[in-house]
Order: sequence, then structure tokens, then C-alpha cells
Amino acid sequence: MVKDQVRAIGIDDAPFKFSEEDVLVVGTVMRAPNYLEGVLSTRVDIDGVDATEKITAMIDCSKFQDQAKVIFLDGAALGGFNLIDLEELNKTIDIPVMSVSREKPNFEDIEKALKHHFDDWEKKFEQIKRGEIHEIKTEHDPIYVQKEGLDLKEVERLLGLFTVRGRIPEPIRASHLISSGVVRGESRGKP
Amino acid sequence: MVKDQVRAIGIDDAPFKFSEEDVLVVGTVMRAPNYLEGVLSTRVDIDGVDATEKITAMIDCSKFQDQAKVIFLDGAALGGFNLIDLEELNKTIDIPVMSVSREKPNFEDIEKALKHHFDDWEKKFEQIKRGEIHEIKTEHDPIYVQKEGLDLKEVERLLGLFTVRGRIPEPIRASHLISSGVVRGESRGKP
Repeated sequence: MVKDQVRAIGIDDAPFKFSEEDVLVVGTVMRAPNYLEGVLSTRVDIDGVDATEKITAMIDCSKFQDQAKVIFLDGAALGGFNLIDLEELNKTIDIPVMSVSREKPNFEDIEKALKHHFDDWEKKFEQIKRGEIHEIKTEHDPIYVQKEGLDLKEVERLLGLFTVRGRIPEPIRASHLISSGVVRGESRGKP
Repeated sequence: MVKDQVRAIGIDDAPFKFSEEDVLVVGTVMRAPNYLEGVLSTRVDIDGVDATEKITAMIDCSKFQDQAKVIFLDGAALGGFNLIDLEELNKTIDIPVMSVSREKPNFEDIEKALKHHFDDWEKKFEQIKRGEIHEIKTEHDPIYVQKEGLDLKEVERLLGLFTVRGRIPEPIRASHLISSGVVRGESRGKP
């Protein structure tokens, strides 16, 4: 496989207020390491349950569906606690999926927040705890990955192919900058 | 000057219908040749007169104002015939500005279109004709450039620094993909 022919889609949501109904979600398609090939977008309900379905539709309807070797997610939720079911997403679109986090998820804090906000908190909490969290070493601090449809060796290879600076793969970094720049007028912060 | 420290902002508008009031405009900040550093956005009136003012404000209020060595524009108008005054933009933000087109402007066709759409067509037509058009050779077909605040040698150097494939500098290509991807759900076509 030629290194620079590998394509990935990185997904992140825009900043939002909980008083809003839904939030912009951007998918950036890049050829390794960081050549921009396309931009996808959709909207998901804040604290809703449609993230998996909306992301599936966004990718499935696009010309990039056959090209992407991996989907990078910034954590496993969008728009607050609108959880992405990695297993279902991977099964439906037939592309390996991994979520990437800078911090190790703190399940005690998550449980408290869920109890505070949702009647059906147990269902959401079970889904969050379902996937195993892998600590991946980088040149900098480690990152924390949940994955579906690929092994850890492939996780490390793909992260290496798409990471240029720091720990966050370029397609996620781009989706963060794009979504926040479009919604706020100027992109800010990390990843 | 270290080559990879040169930053540029590329500006393009999203697809729109003339029945709409205004249109999304995106500014992509890149470090040569194509490392994404930030995304800016604003809106301009379709066929209006606020493009110069809105772009000035978008860049002037951002942290990239002191960093960009050049502004690349996709042609000299946004949202139809909302003309960008290159001279005024360059004077106000104190950054060299160039507009880039794949086709040599056909002034006869432009005059006809302006007459058809605007009472004050003469004013717009004069502004469009004001800047000299330079044909710049590339490895592919030539491109056509209007410029303010830099000489032709610097035009060629900056185009060379930011062009990876084809003839269009990466910051313009990115703004085209971002704006159309966010508005349509999937980016399409060439800038």
C-alpha cells in the first residue's frame, strides 16, 4: 500500500450552548498525512440519541464511503451526551472506527453527570462503559482509544500516518478548526 | 525567511441561490504549503456591497492578522457581484492581496451581466476593470491574477509556496471545500 494513498475521515462537533437544539458536526476527509480532499457535515441533537444514525448517513451518502480506511472520532459522543455506538457504526458503514481522547475517561464523573441529566442514564452509562479503553503511547503524553474493526497494531499505524504535530490526528484537528471557525467566526482551542 | 513559516489566508464563498439574502464566506489560514492553522468565517450580502468591509473585519479581529503574509482571493467578488476592492483591503489590513482566476475575465460578458442586474452597473464595471490582470504561467494552464501590495516576483513565489496540485493555492482550495461541505453536506467541484 502506498503510504500517501491512505484516506481517513475525522469527525468533531462545533461549540454549542445547551439552550440550542442541535449542533453542527463536520467530517474532514484527508489523504495521509494531511492533504484535504473533502468536507462533510450534518447536525445532531444536543444530548440526543441520533449521533450514530446521522454520522452513518453523512458518510454513507458521500463519495468517500469507499475510500476511507478509518473514521477518527474526537471521543465517543457529540453534542454533549449524544453517544456514538462504535460497534453499530463500524458494522453499518464497514469502515474501521476509533475514538481518540487526550484524557482517560473518568467513569465516576461521567456517571454523576448522566444521573443528573437523564432519566435513562443507566442505558447511556452502559454504552459508554462497553468499549475497552486502550492507552496508546505517543512521543508526547499517551492518548486513549476505543476501537472497532481494527487491531491495536493498525490503530498505532493509522495514528502515526495521520499525526503531524502533537497527539491528535489531522482529520480530527481539521474538523475541530472548521466547525468552530464556521460557528464562531474564528476557530479556537484544541484539538 | 524559513519557508514553512509563511502563512496565508485563502478566501472563498459557499454555493448559494440568488433567492437567498446572504452567503457564508470562509477564510482558511495555512502555513506553507498546506498545514491548517485556523478557520475564519463571515457572511456577505448576495450581489451586495459589503464584501470588502466584511473581509476586513473578519481578518482584522482575528489572531492571524499579524501572521499572514498574503490574502488569496478566488476571483475579485463574493456572493455574485459583491466586489472586493483589493486596493482598499490591502490598505486597511496592511497585508498583500491577490485574486486568482482559472479563466481570463471576459469584460464584454461581465458588462452585459452587470447592465442586466444593476442600476449602478457603471460603478461596478469601473471597479472590476481598474486592476491590471496578469497572466501567470504554471506547470499546467496559466492563471490570471490581480494584485495589491506585492510585485509579480513575490506573486509567483507565494503561488509556488502554497500550490500542491493543479493551479489553485491550497488555502483557496480548502475554503472552497469547507464552505461547500458545510452548506451542502458534502463538498463538491473545484474552486
